[in-house]
Amino acid sequence: MIYKSSLALLTDFYELTMAYGYWKEKIDQKEAVFHLNFRKKPFQGSFAIAAGLGSLIEHLKNFKFSSTDLKYLASIRTQNNTPFFEKKFLDYLKNLRFSCDIDAVEEGNVVFPYEPLIRVKGPLLQAQILESIILNIINFQTLIATKAARICFAAKPDPVVEFGIRRSQGIDGGISASRAAFIGGCSATSNVLAAKLFNIPLSGTQAHSWVMAFEKEEESFLAFAKAIPEKCVLLIDTYESLQGVKKAIEVAKSLKKENFKLFGVRLDSGDLAQLSIEIRKILDTAGFEKTQIIASNELDEYLIRDLKHQKAAITLWGVGTNLVTAKDQSALDGVYKLSAIKEKNKWIPKIKVSEQVAKISIPGILQVRRFFDKGKYIADSIFDELSQNGKEIINIQDRTHLKILKTAEHRDLLVPIFRKGKLVYKSPKLEDVRQKCGMELDKFSLAIRRFLNPHPYFVGLEKSLYKKREMLIEKMRKNY
Amino acid sequence: MIYKSSLALLTDFYELTMAYGYWKEKIDQKEAVFHLNFRKKPFQGSFAIAAGLGSLIEHLKNFKFSSTDLKYLASIRTQNNTPFFEKKFLDYLKNLRFSCDIDAVEEGNVVFPYEPLIRVKGPLLQAQILESIILNIINFQTLIATKAARICFAAKPDPVVEFGIRRSQGIDGGISASRAAFIGGCSATSNVLAAKLFNIPLSGTQAHSWVMAFEKEEESFLAFAKAIPEKCVLLIDTYESLQGVKKAIEVAKSLKKENFKLFGVRLDSGDLAQLSIEIRKILDTAGFEKTQIIASNELDEYLIRDLKHQKAAITLWGVGTNLVTAKDQSALDGVYKLSAIKEKNKWIPKIKVSEQVAKISIPGILQVRRFFDKGKYIADSIFDELSQNGKEIINIQDRTHLKILKTAEHRDLLVPIFRKGKLVYKSPKLEDVRQKCGMELDKFSLAIRRFLNPHPYFVGLEKSLYKKREMLIEKMRKNY
Repeated sequence: MIYKSSLALLTDFYELTMAYGYWKEKIDQKEAVFHLNFRKKPFQGSFAIAAGLGSLIEHLKNFKFSSTDLKYLASIRTQNNTPFFEKKFLDYLKNLRFSCDIDAVEEGNVVFPYEPLIRVKGPLLQAQILESIILNIINFQTLIATKAARICFAAKPDPVVEFGIRRSQGIDGGISASRAAFIGGCSATSNVLAAKLFNIPLSGTQAHSWVMAFEKEEESFLAFAKAIPEKCVLLIDTYESLQGVKKAIEVAKSLKKENFKLFGVRLDSGDLAQLSIEIRKILDTAGFEKTQIIASNELDEYLIRDLKHQKAAITLWGVGTNLVTAKDQSALDGVYKLSAIKEKNKWIPKIKVSEQVAKISIPGILQVRRFFDKGKYIADSIFDELSQNGKEIINIQDRTHLKILKTAEHRDLLVPIFRKGKLVYKSPKLEDVRQKCGMELDKFSLAIRRFLNPHPYFVGLEKSLYKKREMLIEKMRKNY
Repeated sequence: MIYKSSLALLTDFYELTMAYGYWKEKIDQKEAVFHLNFRKKPFQGSFAIAAGLGSLIEHLKNFKFSSTDLKYLASIRTQNNTPFFEKKFLDYLKNLRFSCDIDAVEEGNVVFPYEPLIRVKGPLLQAQILESIILNIINFQTLIATKAARICFAAKPDPVVEFGIRRSQGIDGGISASRAAFIGGCSATSNVLAAKLFNIPLSGTQAHSWVMAFEKEEESFLAFAKAIPEKCVLLIDTYESLQGVKKAIEVAKSLKKENFKLFGVRLDSGDLAQLSIEIRKILDTAGFEKTQIIASNELDEYLIRDLKHQKAAITLWGVGTNLVTAKDQSALDGVYKLSAIKEKNKWIPKIKVSEQVAKISIPGILQVRRFFDKGKYIADSIFDELSQNGKEIINIQDRTHLKILKTAEHRDLLVPIFRKGKLVYKSPKLEDVRQKCGMELDKFSLAIRRFLNPHPYFVGLEKSLYKKREMLIEKMRKNY
């Protein structure tokens, strides 16, 4: 936690007006179930990497309206200058303690549209007011972990270093992007605070300003190599890259006695394919075969793929802005929808119908079952824990597309995180999450990772859930 | 400040490795000047709105390496498992106090490519390590204030409410987006924490889950209207919008005795143009001429413009994701470059040459002078405070384009913020910044605000600066 106190107010105002209404209607304690899922495949790919749960847990553990929060809420006035919220309601918030059950897909798992990533079950008022913060954290980190997985896939087997903090969307937009990028496969970050908070390896050398602070480029190289011989990378493009690399070599040679090793040279402009090939030749000729060539400059998965296709001799990729702000799709469209409510001890499924088909929600208390065969994943079934759970699944966007899952092995993706507000889950180390993510991706057909026209993985609604949903939609439409 | 302590570690690792190098080379105290400027016009428009200074000031006021920061830095090891940083250097950081001069363009001003928004003058080491945090804060808030100004321009004269927290890029990506969106012209936010921190008006009513938590839509409307009659807005598209509005009207009529006013109805799906026109008719026929029609659903400046062009009857616009993540350009390309360094009591101009022309920096200790005539701005001159300041300016991207500024009035955009680390600037109220922003925009030709092919505003380098820069580039190129 880098925050002074709980972020209970990090919420849309309507969560609080609804909470106030639920409280006034005395339905605040009614049991309800909400799910978070996204609908649109990010980056026109076919999958996403679940991320953010660790951060969400930290938030929920500390959930509490502080005295300044309550003071602020008390200060909100109506147009008639009377308090917006009754004092009794603020006392209620003051004493409110998080007591929901939460199940979630563990970080580093591969997930698909319509699959619930988070399931919240508990008193209606509580489950409601958590909406904004859950969406905020999970939407963003899932987006960035996904982007990172794509970029790392393009760069494979070379490592990718994330250094986006200078253009990230705000302070936490940087910190949590570093966290998510590491989950998605990056090897290191330049963000020192993120490295400290999440134990991510650090990376970084010098900027053009270092080189410019000296009268001559070679002086700057020598000074840097002497000051920080550890994994020394020299930035060679401040003036002219091909001259720059020669100077770096001269400096490295002059320090031979000190047992200095030139770990790498960095390029940040120009035609990275052609330049890296020429620089490789210069380095190799001078006996610096092991020196890395590190490149940056508005890289993303497509440019890395193209540079590799053009035989660029780059061995380490630095990616910033396009990764941490997910340039080509700056948000995951995750939503958090009410899907069941308990009336007189009976769960009533709830559905949000819409004129846009994609916006229609899935009713019930949902779980995702992933089936595999010989170590490879073959299909996911979204089912309602309250219904019978059959082997037949129907594609949510194409009802003619069925699959019958016979004897395949499976595991359920949603696992218990909180029970009645108590944390029952031990967050794994981030490095373990990262490793797991790589291994999970490898259990899917490579076809889902193709950038252009990836093959869709089969995700279906279990048949009885599919039918129940159709029935509810029909009923809703008939009533109008 | 929502943070527990200073965010001194919110920096790229290379700032610290350079700092270590400067310290080892004993050039840490050399006086240096850095500027922040952006190069690419955001959103293919022609201007940006300066924002983020208020947040940056908060950060710099608290700048300090905490004991846990230093402990973390001490824990970083080389490959040989020796400490990366000498203990003496960490003691140096421990005692480091911010002591730079900072000048900046005040928030809410209209700014253009290549104009310095922030100027830092002070000891090389300090001015260097502030790079990442300055870029992080100013890049993002300037981007979002600009996007907000565009969206509000499209919606004019209707108000725009920002409600992006659920899809914003991280926690602070949401909080600082709300702040910047308000500067750029939004009327209110849904983000309660941002409203608390920055005194922004709040807005929000209910979600689909409220409507779904009741058996019937009309019950949910009645319950909400009774619980929160204040500026009551009812969400009418949970099932079918045209039926929804009729139910909202019935509920409002049933509460006539209680003097209830239906402030608005909200639409979140469907064809917003056609639906809003039909809803307006239904409302007017029922005598609800004053009831607002509020619309949301993936809005941005282009969609708002088109909906208005199609005579949509929307009177209040809710904008989320596309505003707070600046969908079509998720980052401002601001850079922070060394532009002068003091050697033996003499300022030496510094320039970063690049194979990409756009990446070549401007040397000197810069200021921006904005000229106006009869209350309208006519041109900006970027000049070096150390040079003579002539009346002739040359377009930075087109040397054949000159302008001679004769007797025009002017004001200088960079104003003193810190002097030797001491804050000498009083941050205005955010509401005043917002008002100022609107008034400043109105002092430019409307042509700069056109979305398609906006007319560029004239920004030039003062002639002697232009010549000096050309000379330095030539000299650099010749040396290679």
